[in-house]
Amino acid sequence: MTARRLEAFSDGVIAIIITIMVLEMKVPRGGSLKDLEPLLPIILSYVLSYVFVGIYWSNHHHLLHVCTVVTGATLWANLHLLFWLSLFPFTTGWMGENHFAALPTALYTLVLFMAAVAYYMLQLVIIRAQGQDSILKRAIGRDWKGKVSLVLYIVAGVATLRSSLLAQAVLVGTALMWVIPDRRIEKQLSPHSA
Amino acid sequence: MTARRLEAFSDGVIAIIITIMVLEMKVPRGGSLKDLEPLLPIILSYVLSYVFVGIYWSNHHHLLHVCTVVTGATLWANLHLLFWLSLFPFTTGWMGENHFAALPTALYTLVLFMAAVAYYMLQLVIIRAQGQDSILKRAIGRDWKGKVSLVLYIVAGVATLRSSLLAQAVLVGTALMWVIPDRRIEKQLSPHSA
Amino acid sequence: MTARRLEAFSDGVIAIIITIMVLEMKVPRGGSLKDLEPLLPIILSYVLSYVFVGIYWSNHHHLLHVCTVVTGATLWANLHLLFWLSLFPFTTGWMGENHFAALPTALYTLVLFMAAVAYYMLQLVIIRAQGQDSILKRAIGRDWKGKVSLVLYIVAGVATLRSSLLAQAVLVGTALMWVIPDRRIEKQLSPHSA
Amino acid sequence: MTARRLEAFSDGVIAIIITIMVLEMKVPRGGSLKDLEPLLPIILSYVLSYVFVGIYWSNHHHLLHVCTVVTGATLWANLHLLFWLSLFPFTTGWMGENHFAALPTALYTLVLFMAAVAYYMLQLVIIRAQGQDSILKRAIGRDWKGKVSLVLYIVAGVATLRSSLLAQAVLVGTALMWVIPDRRIEKQLSPHSA
Repeated sequence: MTARRLEAFSDGVIAIIITIMVLEMKVPRGGSLKDLEPLLPIILSYVLSYVFVGIYWSNHHHLLHVCTVVTGATLWANLHLLFWLSLFPFTTGWMGENHFAALPTALYTLVLFMAAVAYYMLQLVIIRAQGQDSILKRAIGRDWKGKVSLVLYIVAGVATLRSSLLAQAVLVGTALMWVIPDRRIEKQLSPHSA
Repeated sequence: MTARRLEAFSDGVIAIIITIMVLEMKVPRGGSLKDLEPLLPIILSYVLSYVFVGIYWSNHHHLLHVCTVVTGATLWANLHLLFWLSLFPFTTGWMGENHFAALPTALYTLVLFMAAVAYYMLQLVIIRAQGQDSILKRAIGRDWKGKVSLVLYIVAGVATLRSSLLAQAVLVGTALMWVIPDRRIEKQLSPHSA
Repeated sequence: MTARRLEAFSDGVIAIIITIMVLEMKVPRGGSLKDLEPLLPIILSYVLSYVFVGIYWSNHHHLLHVCTVVTGATLWANLHLLFWLSLFPFTTGWMGENHFAALPTALYTLVLFMAAVAYYMLQLVIIRAQGQDSILKRAIGRDWKGKVSLVLYIVAGVATLRSSLLAQAVLVGTALMWVIPDRRIEKQLSPHSA
Repeated sequence: MTARRLEAFSDGVIAIIITIMVLEMKVPRGGSLKDLEPLLPIILSYVLSYVFVGIYWSNHHHLLHVCTVVTGATLWANLHLLFWLSLFPFTTGWMGENHFAALPTALYTLVLFMAAVAYYMLQLVIIRAQGQDSILKRAIGRDWKGKVSLVLYIVAGVATLRSSLLAQAVLVGTALMWVIPDRRIEKQLSPHSA
């Protein structure tokens, strides 16, 4: 029951974050193609962040699904994660407005990194609260992706010092790592049809 | 259970999209009728988009109602649909601000078209995940309207090259095609009172 | 089940409307009392609208509670109500910005009137769909307040031609009519403690 | 059931409030570190408010959990609490924009104080509606923190007359008082693992 409300509240916050990001795409005055052009990097950064928020929503969904005990620490670890996610609209907008310049990309990557740390902490808190039972081992099993992501965010952050394009490539790669396997799992599931 | 959360999250995003569109109607400084006048095309485009989002919400509601298996692909197909819907406030605002000019209307129509494609893909993904059982045949039965809509969006898109008014007429017609049958069904249901 | 989702979606939209209204209170640059002064009418209009949205949420809650059959017409009648409610942030902001001038107050009253009409239509649609059973007679019993409100909105609308203050007084009176009885009912319930 | 909807609606409003606050952090035009600098006080005030809203959400969650009877008064007492919370984005933005100046800090503290009063009233209304049964005694047991908070808000409000920094320290202390004990409780619970 309590985990359901944590889920519902987090869903609400994530739904608002994902939708508020679009507000950074300010409607231009003119109606020509030229007026749309400056929005291109903003749209691209929006797509990237949309995918990242989608990944968090999906993972968060699976994590809370196996969470049976909600303590005060779970609650605050969850709010901590949502805090970093709530900064996405700002860093996304800043990165897009500045055409993926080095510093905004670095800040964008830092917030991604902090969100990944917060997610990792949330996992630890949930596991500590309910013990190392079998259901959560699955969550820990998926953990290598979380750790690889943390490393990739650091790589992307360092890459901004040399080339912002390289940093973007690393971020896109990280996102794909999370999205693609889901499709593979789905293909395995579909013949069984359950 | 999982389908319920997919539904709840989608409801949240759609509720925010429908409400955020109204923010494009910026409160004018002055208090006279003249100050309201420039808002008229914005209000008209808001009404049109409101009806379209309402149609998507209603159809989405019926679709997820018969969805029993949620795979990773369902999740991403759903996020893909929500992505295109999330662009509605932007395209609506741009079309309204530019008094239904050709290019903004074309972009508006393109996003509608992409949302319809995304909806179609979501249907396919759900059907593939749970097999061709009887409940989903109802969903497929309604499919002709989805296909006709896709054609009508292309017609509207091409029409913007000649006349924006014609394109608007096609879009209004498409919306009415979805809204009116619901009333007919209701009339059939009301004597049975269930 | 379906009524629950209608409820959840409406709750989402109403929650966003009530919160978005506060965005009209733009943060002033300066930090002195003088900088806050222009916001006073905006805050007052926000309080008035907040109470009206609260009344709608509360009534809507009771209405859907007795709604067992959700038809396509119910769905669209509900979206129709939400449409007029979604205009509240705009009319509230316009009225506040213009210090309760005649025309903005008239438009504010018109939207209130249309929302009341939409609510009345929603009631009719729900009753028609599920027949005149005993549970809904309670809803009809509360109907006199709905009809009185419709008249009061017309009175307020006409009053704006002579005095905006008078119109505001009528609107405040209408809101109080809905809020106060709830307290009376509560007092009757509290001794029974259920 | 009714308490569940009250909870869901409040969750929605609180989720929007917490996310809307971040909109006050306007994306700066330039992409250098200098462009970020003016945002520092805004970010700090956002973090403070985020924690306060988190505390309210958490407490509200526990309060409604023991609420079995929802009267009209409960509903309006809850809307009253949400009203003061809805002013957080404004007061947070004003305080941040003005670098924690005395008057904005005083207004920020006043709204916190009013929210605490509203929360206290909500507790009383719920207790009166369902009688002084054993479950609610736990809620009353936690009451001393609510009363201490009220005093601390007054202290902080008075402190703004002398030093805004002192006022901030009191507010941070108040927030910590609510956050830290939750962790202590969690530590006590974790060995029992339920």
